[in-house]
Amino acid sequence: MPEAEYKMSPIGRVKCAVDTMSEGGWGKIDSELHLDAEYALGLQGLAGLSHILVLFLLDRSQDFDIAKQLLRRLRGMEDLDPVGVFAQRTKYRPNPLAVTAVKLLGIEGPVLKVHALDALDGTLVLDIKPYMPPFDRMEDVRMPPWVSYFIEGYF
Amino acid sequence: MPEAEYKMSPIGRVKCAVDTMSEGGWGKIDSELHLDAEYALGLQGLAGLSHILVLFLLDRSQDFDIAKQLLRRLRGMEDLDPVGVFAQRTKYRPNPLAVTAVKLLGIEGPVLKVHALDALDGTLVLDIKPYMPPFDRMEDVRMPPWVSYFIEGYF
Repeated sequence: MPEAEYKMSPIGRVKCAVDTMSEGGWGKIDSELHLDAEYALGLQGLAGLSHILVLFLLDRSQDFDIAKQLLRRLRGMEDLDPVGVFAQRTKYRPNPLAVTAVKLLGIEGPVLKVHALDALDGTLVLDIKPYMPPFDRMEDVRMPPWVSYFIEGYF
Repeated sequence: MPEAEYKMSPIGRVKCAVDTMSEGGWGKIDSELHLDAEYALGLQGLAGLSHILVLFLLDRSQDFDIAKQLLRRLRGMEDLDPVGVFAQRTKYRPNPLAVTAVKLLGIEGPVLKVHALDALDGTLVLDIKPYMPPFDRMEDVRMPPWVSYFIEGYF
């Protein structure tokens, strides 16, 4: 793609008890999203929603290596075919972007409390969006069997 | 946030019949995502999934104006309180990032066919992720009444 690069500026940071690369168990974790104070007003109306999307930067997984990371065998599944990066939620991606839907527990000023966000302490937040079923909640979702092996224990 | 800016490089582009800012009706639109040829291998395994997330750049809505766009009254709802940017899916955001879940219709080489993607022709794609219910499909979603007015006719 011959386009210019596009710049993203974090709007805040994750605060949580997990600070090393984790193997899972995110379903046990509550986190706070500390937005910059100047963005607090942008949260107005959000407290009426039960869930949000958090877009965050995989800042500890940059420098994607296309030769090594475009196609990978999943951990513990060496007997299966390798799977492409776009069929995985791996943190090693051409653009280090993550998006996870989480339950919103509360908002106080520029701080949001959320449940089960799979982001390390200090992770940079790029955007918060309301979780809206027509955009986000798909019906009749079908996945190949290897996906469930991958997800097991993650949340 | 005193951090440096982070650079994103598009991996491909949307091709569809909609090339002017739309008021909705995205549920009628099928689109193609043309990835750069070098990324085709990264799609391996994805054809087994029914849905994907498309992360794209709102490249025609850049230069967010914090004074005017952090808090806005919704169109046609001038009698309601204004709503913050993080409680809306508006295209004017601090970081011009969008994420929409769509049905995957097919893959041919580096081209994905998808249904109901709310992106204009030529939109730059940043990432493709597999739609996985534990990450993306929330239960017991609650939204305030104004959300349904906003969404009506969009898809």
